[in-house]
Amino acid sequence: MCELLGMSANVPTDICFSFAGLMQRGGGTGPHKDGWGIAFYEGKGVRCFHDPNPSVDSKIANLVKEHPIKSHVVISHIRQANVGDICLENTHPFQRELWGFIWTFAHNGQLDNVLFSLPLSYYHPVGSTDSEYAFCWLLGQLRTRFPEQPDDFNEVSAFIHTCCETLRGLGVFNMLLTESTHLFAFCGSKLSWITRKAPFGEARLTDCDVTVDFVQETKPGDIVTVIATVPLTTNEAWVALKPGELVTFVKGLLQ
Amino acid sequence: MCELLGMSANVPTDICFSFAGLMQRGGGTGPHKDGWGIAFYEGKGVRCFHDPNPSVDSKIANLVKEHPIKSHVVISHIRQANVGDICLENTHPFQRELWGFIWTFAHNGQLDNVLFSLPLSYYHPVGSTDSEYAFCWLLGQLRTRFPEQPDDFNEVSAFIHTCCETLRGLGVFNMLLTESTHLFAFCGSKLSWITRKAPFGEARLTDCDVTVDFVQETKPGDIVTVIATVPLTTNEAWVALKPGELVTFVKGLLQ
Repeated sequence: MCELLGMSANVPTDICFSFAGLMQRGGGTGPHKDGWGIAFYEGKGVRCFHDPNPSVDSKIANLVKEHPIKSHVVISHIRQANVGDICLENTHPFQRELWGFIWTFAHNGQLDNVLFSLPLSYYHPVGSTDSEYAFCWLLGQLRTRFPEQPDDFNEVSAFIHTCCETLRGLGVFNMLLTESTHLFAFCGSKLSWITRKAPFGEARLTDCDVTVDFVQETKPGDIVTVIATVPLTTNEAWVALKPGELVTFVKGLLQ
Repeated sequence: MCELLGMSANVPTDICFSFAGLMQRGGGTGPHKDGWGIAFYEGKGVRCFHDPNPSVDSKIANLVKEHPIKSHVVISHIRQANVGDICLENTHPFQRELWGFIWTFAHNGQLDNVLFSLPLSYYHPVGSTDSEYAFCWLLGQLRTRFPEQPDDFNEVSAFIHTCCETLRGLGVFNMLLTESTHLFAFCGSKLSWITRKAPFGEARLTDCDVTVDFVQETKPGDIVTVIATVPLTTNEAWVALKPGELVTFVKGLLQ
């Protein structure tokens, strides 16, 4: 199993606080020692860092933690390998281009080998994980259904939801997916989110002894949603998604 | 105009020495202050760092310079913007997947607007540069010609060469391209390479006061080729490619 972390915000926001908590699970408080990755969007552009080493020891993870990169949309993942060797090409998140957008995908869970009989079309995996295969299948389905970007993104959400339900039928499938503006979160078994906005309060990390006072860190109009497989703070009311539920966030707001 | 740097090696090799020279051209000794990027392959996996800030000031560039990442194949680029704003999505190198490989591309030069009338097929640009458009066109042509990966990569080289000649007809087009094993280098106007192997000697950077003694840094069987738009060292015999020439390197060796 693995840990997922996502963020959607209406202003460029750094994710240092949440990432500090997640990193501890990468060989510190958790067993997820088989690599980690994080994608930060700036407009349609994206920076992506991957490391097959445990996040708790990683020099690149330290750079990300200490050197705030501000972003509207973030997807991060730390891995405990089940399917596929520990190597760079098996490290989430995975990325492919569709409609002139770089789509980024990360998965928590494990899927039955039946997955590998689902037909691929435009996209092919580089590594050997079930996760990347599922992503290639899903994005290929989306491209076949919508060769051009549709005007109404609700149609895209609904179609992605259908594909996610197919994948949930094959095992455990919690997912984060984005094309830069929309952050799609699908819960197969566990996924929780919280929206922080004014009036801001204090938050305390579950995984290490860190507290942040968001009043000091934010402006009154800021809206920031964080999504994680397991809530990252002990003193806030996270919303747990139900199995089979897909939610979409734009600029921090639930659509 | 921009600067290109490529490496192909038979053992995982760090590129710190050459990168140190290239970085100086990013706002130091050169006018290429509009961002930089570098892709490192480890097997089929690839790490890619992008920064729209000048490389000479970049914290991420310092990480790359000081924290040796060993790789078989590297492509790097520093940019002086001509077509397209200075932003993350316009920062080279660009990447797309074909045949289950992540292809990485960087371009030096500028192409006529006629380029944008070349038809795209599978791949679409995220940003607004001539370079990314040319890459999307080239890779789409390759995919149309070879829907599946051919057994003989010489056919791939020959086809890429034809596409490069078309692009050279539209302006200045120097290019580095790889899928993880083959490093393709096309010279439209300037591109030079050098292969370092035993007996190793000393090399002195053109752009800053750094000398390296490769005897200390290498093993006798190492073979490392470096390709750059302008030779990076003053005391070695670089081979200048002729306009219209395409060369392919595998594990440091000219094919």
